Amino acid sequence: VARSGTSVTHTVDRPAPQLRRAAVLAVGTELLTALRPETNTSEIARALETRGLDVVVRGVVRDNEEEIARTLDHARSLADLVVITGGLGPTDDDVTREAVRRALGRLLVEDAAIVEQIRKRFSRRGMTMPEINRRQGRVIQGAMVLANPNGSAPGQLIADESRVIVLLPGPPRELRPMLGTVLDGALAIRLGARRLLRRELRVAGRSESWIEERMQPLYVSWRAQPTPVDATILTPLPHIELHLSAWSEPGDDAEAALEAAAAATVAALGDAVFTVSGESIEKVVGRQLLARGWRIAVAESCTGGLVGTRLTDVPGSSAWFERGIVAYSNDAKIDLLGVDRALIDEHGAVSEPVALAMAKGIRQDSDVDVGVAVTGIAGPTGGTDAKPVGTVVVAAEMPDVAEVRTLRLLGDRWMIRAHAAQSTLDLVRRRLDRST
Amino acid sequence: VARSGTSVTHTVDRPAPQLRRAAVLAVGTELLTALRPETNTSEIARALETRGLDVVVRGVVRDNEEEIARTLDHARSLADLVVITGGLGPTDDDVTREAVRRALGRLLVEDAAIVEQIRKRFSRRGMTMPEINRRQGRVIQGAMVLANPNGSAPGQLIADESRVIVLLPGPPRELRPMLGTVLDGALAIRLGARRLLRRELRVAGRSESWIEERMQPLYVSWRAQPTPVDATILTPLPHIELHLSAWSEPGDDAEAALEAAAAATVAALGDAVFTVSGESIEKVVGRQLLARGWRIAVAESCTGGLVGTRLTDVPGSSAWFERGIVAYSNDAKIDLLGVDRALIDEHGAVSEPVALAMAKGIRQDSDVDVGVAVTGIAGPTGGTDAKPVGTVVVAAEMPDVAEVRTLRLLGDRWMIRAHAAQSTLDLVRRRLDRST
Repeated sequence: VARSGTSVTHTVDRPAPQLRRAAVLAVGTELLTALRPETNTSEIARALETRGLDVVVRGVVRDNEEEIARTLDHARSLADLVVITGGLGPTDDDVTREAVRRALGRLLVEDAAIVEQIRKRFSRRGMTMPEINRRQGRVIQGAMVLANPNGSAPGQLIADESRVIVLLPGPPRELRPMLGTVLDGALAIRLGARRLLRRELRVAGRSESWIEERMQPLYVSWRAQPTPVDATILTPLPHIELHLSAWSEPGDDAEAALEAAAAATVAALGDAVFTVSGESIEKVVGRQLLARGWRIAVAESCTGGLVGTRLTDVPGSSAWFERGIVAYSNDAKIDLLGVDRALIDEHGAVSEPVALAMAKGIRQDSDVDVGVAVTGIAGPTGGTDAKPVGTVVVAAEMPDVAEVRTLRLLGDRWMIRAHAAQSTLDLVRRRLDRST
Repeated sequence: VARSGTSVTHTVDRPAPQLRRAAVLAVGTELLTALRPETNTSEIARALETRGLDVVVRGVVRDNEEEIARTLDHARSLADLVVITGGLGPTDDDVTREAVRRALGRLLVEDAAIVEQIRKRFSRRGMTMPEINRRQGRVIQGAMVLANPNGSAPGQLIADESRVIVLLPGPPRELRPMLGTVLDGALAIRLGARRLLRRELRVAGRSESWIEERMQPLYVSWRAQPTPVDATILTPLPHIELHLSAWSEPGDDAEAALEAAAAATVAALGDAVFTVSGESIEKVVGRQLLARGWRIAVAESCTGGLVGTRLTDVPGSSAWFERGIVAYSNDAKIDLLGVDRALIDEHGAVSEPVALAMAKGIRQDSDVDVGVAVTGIAGPTGGTDAKPVGTVVVAAEMPDVAEVRTLRLLGDRWMIRAHAAQSTLDLVRRRLDRST
C-alpha cells in the first residue's frame, strides 16, 4: 500500500503462486512446413518437464501479430507458464514482441541500454548496427530483460500474480543457455522442488516383444511402489531404448528407486542391456578394448564400412582401432582377407565359414587381438530362396575363442545394413564381456 | 426443399466455399516431451501447402478431452480446415472423438458396420476383438467415415458450409494413405486448383555466403516476374540445399518458370550444383560410374569407412564399388596401400603426397578405374599448429588424371568427418564430370 503524503511504501511479501502447467510456442512461418523437424518446442518442453511442470500444449504459429496474440491467449487459458521462442529478430516479420504486447495490453518501449549493447556488439565485429536492429531493443512494459551472450536479441520475462510469459530467441545456441539461466534463476522460486529424474537403458539383439514380456511384471511393481518408476520403450533403429523416470522431491528416495529399477531391468534382460546411461554400443566396445589394451580390425562386406565408421566415431578410437577392409567383391575377400576361393565356391560369400575366414584373415594380417567380420545380403536384389535378402552372418575371432552367427534381418536396405552393423558390434561386446 | 406428400426432393447445388487456411493438431501426451521429433504435423502441413492451403498453426496437445476441445475451438477460429491426428485408439486415453463431439456439440454414435469390420480384422489374424475396440466404431454425427486399410481406427471427416475437420489416426503408415485419399477425393472439390510446385537443388564444396552472393540477383528477378519463384536455402550437413517453389494454377507457366529458375541457378553456381532433383551425391557418382562402366575403390583414414558406407548405401552399388580400405594406422597405410614409409615420415600421414599415394595404391591393387583417398585430423585431439584439427586431404586418381586437395574443415569430430566424406565424393563427382 502506497500512502500518499509519505515516502514509505509498504508491500506484503506474499510468495507468488507456483507454476504448474506450461505451454510452449514457436513463432516462424518457415517452421510450419519446414523440411527439418522443429526441435525447439520439444526441447523446451523436456526442460520444463524435468523441472516439474506439466506441459499441456506446444505449437508453431506464423509470423502474424494477430494470430500469435490469439494463440498466446489460448495458451494462457490452458497454462500458467507460456514460453515463446522466435520472432525476436530485427526485421518486419519479427513480430513476437508486438503480439505479446497486444495480448497483454501493455506498452512496448525502446530500451536505450539494450540498443546500446546491440550497437556495441556490432562494432566489436567492426560493423555498424543497421537501424532496423533498434527493434530488438523494444521491451514489454514491466518485463525483466534476459541477457543474450550469444546474439543480439535479448529475452524477456513478464510475470504477474498468476502467470508468466517468457520470450526467447529462436536460434538454439542463443535459446539454450537463456532457458537454463531463466529456469534456474528468475523462475526457480516459482517452480517448486519437484524434479523428473531420467535413466536411459539400451538393449541390443532382442525384439521389443521379448523385452516387454520380461518387463511387464517389473512395470506393474514399479507403478505400485511408494516412489513409482515410469518406463517407456522406444525403438529407434538399430537398438531399443528403455527410458525410466521417477518424480523426485528433496529428501525422497527417487534416485535410489530409479537405480533399483535400472538394476532390476539388467537382472531381467541380462547382457542384452549394453548401457544404463544412454551410451552407444561402439563407445562401450571401445572402453572394453581399452581396458584390455586390445586392438580391433574389421572386415565388412554388406555394411560397406558402417562398422568401421561407427567405431571410429568414438573420439580416441585410434588407440584401439587398427584398420578396416570393405571386401565388397569376392576378389577383394580373397585378395585382401586371404579367404580361400574354394570356401566361397562351396558355401557362398554369405556363409558362416566365409565370415569366420574373413575375421581370422583380418585378425592375422593386421596383428590385432580382435578380428571381426560381417557379410550378408542387404538387398533389394541378390536374395535367393535359401539365402533371402536380410541374411547376414557376423563373426568375431579373439584370443582363445571364435564365434559366428547367422541372422535373418527384416526391412529395407538401410534397415538391414544398420541392424547388421549393430549385430556385429554387439557380438564383439558380448564376447568381450564374457572373456576375462 | 423436401415437399411433403411427394417423393421428389429438390436441392440447390451451391458449391461449398473453398478452404484456404489450415491448422494441424496432433493428440498424444507422449508427443509433448518426446525424444524423437513429432513429424506427423509437419508432414501433413506440407501436404496441405502443396495443395494450395495456407497453414497458419500446428500444435500438439495432451490426451485431455477438454484441452483438445478448446484447442480445436482455437484452431477453428484461425483456420477453415483443421486436421487432427492421433487419439483414435481403443483405450480410455484416446479421447479425440469425444473432444471433437464436445467442441462441435454433436452426438457420438457407435456405427455397427465399423465395429463389424474391426471384429473381422481381428478374426482374420485369428484373434478375438477386445471389447474396448468398440470405441473405434464411434462416429461423430454427420461425419463421413474414412476407411483405414492399414489399421483398425477409421478416420472421420466433418464438413459444414464454412469449415471442415478431419480426424486421422496417428501411426504414419495409417495416416499417410488416408490423408492422400481424403485430399485427392472428398476434399478435392473444396481445395481449388492452386498447387505448390517444388524443386530441390543441392550444392557441395561452397559456403552458404558464396551461394547467397551469386543467388541474390536471381532472387530479386524471380520475385518480380509474372510467375514468382520462391527460394529457401537450407544447410543440413554436409551439403547445402536450395529449395525452389512456385504456385501453379492450371494452364499457367509455373512448371516452366521453375525449370528456368533451376537452370539459372546451375548457370550461376556452375558445377557446385550436383543435383536438381534432391539426389544424394553418392547416387550421382554411382550413375556417373555406371555410365562409363568404371569401378571405384576407396582408401579412408579419418572417415573410418564413411565414404564406403555412403557409396554402398546406393542399391546396386556392387556393380561399380569394388572395395574399401580403412587404413587408420600408419602401418595399415603402408601394408595395405603400399604407401612408402619415407613419404609419411617426410610429409606426415595427413599430406597431399600421402593422400595421392593412397589413391594410387588402392587403384592399382584393386585394378579399378577410380582410386580415391581421404586422410585427415577429425579431432578432438591430434591437431598441431601446422595441421590443426579439421585439416583433411582428399585425392582421386583415374585414367589420365589425378587430383588432390587440402581442406580446412570446421566443427566437431562428427561434422569434420561428414564434411570430409562429402568432399571426397564431390572431388570424384567433379572429376568424372570433366573427364569424358
